[in-house]
Amino acid sequence: MVKKIVAGIDIGGTNTKLGLVDEEGKILMHQTVQTARYPDAEMFANEISSLLLSEARKIRNSELCGLGIGSPNANYYTGQVEFAPNLPWKGKVPLAQYFKDATSLPVAITNDAKAAALGEMVFGGAKSMKHFLFVTLGTGLGSGIVSSGSLVYGHDGFAGEMGHMIIKDQSNRLCGCGRYGCLETYVSATGLRKSYMKFLAERDKRAEEPPENIDAKYIFDRAQLGDRDALASFEYTGHILGLALANASALFSPEAIFLFGGLTKAGDYIFNPTKISFEKNLLKIYKGKINILSSSLQESDAAILGSASLIFNEIK
Amino acid sequence: MVKKIVAGIDIGGTNTKLGLVDEEGKILMHQTVQTARYPDAEMFANEISSLLLSEARKIRNSELCGLGIGSPNANYYTGQVEFAPNLPWKGKVPLAQYFKDATSLPVAITNDAKAAALGEMVFGGAKSMKHFLFVTLGTGLGSGIVSSGSLVYGHDGFAGEMGHMIIKDQSNRLCGCGRYGCLETYVSATGLRKSYMKFLAERDKRAEEPPENIDAKYIFDRAQLGDRDALASFEYTGHILGLALANASALFSPEAIFLFGGLTKAGDYIFNPTKISFEKNLLKIYKGKINILSSSLQESDAAILGSASLIFNEIK
Repeated sequence: MVKKIVAGIDIGGTNTKLGLVDEEGKILMHQTVQTARYPDAEMFANEISSLLLSEARKIRNSELCGLGIGSPNANYYTGQVEFAPNLPWKGKVPLAQYFKDATSLPVAITNDAKAAALGEMVFGGAKSMKHFLFVTLGTGLGSGIVSSGSLVYGHDGFAGEMGHMIIKDQSNRLCGCGRYGCLETYVSATGLRKSYMKFLAERDKRAEEPPENIDAKYIFDRAQLGDRDALASFEYTGHILGLALANASALFSPEAIFLFGGLTKAGDYIFNPTKISFEKNLLKIYKGKINILSSSLQESDAAILGSASLIFNEIK
Repeated sequence: MVKKIVAGIDIGGTNTKLGLVDEEGKILMHQTVQTARYPDAEMFANEISSLLLSEARKIRNSELCGLGIGSPNANYYTGQVEFAPNLPWKGKVPLAQYFKDATSLPVAITNDAKAAALGEMVFGGAKSMKHFLFVTLGTGLGSGIVSSGSLVYGHDGFAGEMGHMIIKDQSNRLCGCGRYGCLETYVSATGLRKSYMKFLAERDKRAEEPPENIDAKYIFDRAQLGDRDALASFEYTGHILGLALANASALFSPEAIFLFGGLTKAGDYIFNPTKISFEKNLLKIYKGKINILSSSLQESDAAILGSASLIFNEIK
């Protein structure tokens, strides 16, 4: 029997990860290239495509069914990458079309958080679910929202941006989007750091390390030593996340919520206050019914599996 | 040619409105009955059904294609009305099934705000839209969210509750849902009244009327006379609504937002501050692209048209 395989491509500002994935979610081949080596997007698509086609041919009894791409600022509807500040290609780039031209295969593209949400549905803990929230807690806060079994893309393709809900009016935390008080300025590695510095400052204390050394890992280590400000930062972050997830639940009525990404490595330090705040702020009809879970995808595999899921979700 | 007609039934705590609607959204017959006259839900379904069947037979060359019901606490998935505090029927009532048994016709049920949102899509200003928000501003704040051409019901059928997003942490405005600080405690006729009383109190002033006379209409009249606290209440309400709509837009990327219900009669007093706050708080990519519109449904017809749309949306 011919084995169906899909290419997953995860484009990042520094690296692009490529892989070939089978229907069971096994990564048969993977490779990393430097994104900046390709100043031209069409050349990028051509070279990556021939690499993937040639690798796929080496896998016996297999059929390459398509390419799924996760990229910052990618628009699922248009197949374009639009004004991505951290990628070498400027303006609107018809990346899906370039890959279609190069491979004559189906190509789908979306942003990395939405791709990872699909990965959770196709290969992870959301396999049987039609309604769930998927939140990535890294430098920023990304999210993919699945409703009735489909990603919520909205009218223009960019829906599902939980990180850009303004959760504090009059906040002075500037977000990368140019506004103030977005959820990701509080709930992310960056937000945690800001909160830690704030708690220190409010007690007229200075960090024991120079500011540039203070990151989520440092605050986690301090929390483990019982550092009051580090613990307060996690509490505060979790409190805000729990409230935001309760609000999103009033809108989407999800079956479960998956958390993913670097900040989840803090384990109970972030999950406990999040769950407490979530339950406290949840509508009565949902109390005790919506689990906040750790994503079951390995962080190293999620990017490739998620991207490949864009195609598997359609052919499965 | 046989004309397709649908029955629309809008159940309220006081009155139930019935009507027969044709494909153009013309209400061919309508009637109002007192809900409390029917302590038994099955009897209610039987009597309303025979009334509607008999009225439908009087319309020449017509075929009754189904019944759509809007009711508080109605669950689209189960067809039940669940623990509705203001209706005579207690616990979970299989209302859709009762109507199916009585008519042998397709029956669909949802809550009144979701039904009105569908009405906007089938007969109103959202005819060509697949992604929009519909918000009813009455005693409370109801909403229906349409994404990819379908109402968002979520896992349990009760999704889309914008009114129950907690928009102020630490608020002391108690919501009917038992929590504090829900959007509808600020943005609704009730919320407007609370804000007016608050602004008066903060200036050590007493209302010129006894509290029981102060409602949205009174505050609107005062605003027209230039009353500073009345004007501030509308500003405040609109500011909060605009921010909440901007946040919902980050999640849903709607094509437009429709406002409906009593409070919209205040016209510019509510629309202007809402639009200003909305644009200010909107993600840059959406600025100037999402219109906040007045619903094009007549308030007197919306309940029946909305309910009927539950069926028309499926047969059209």
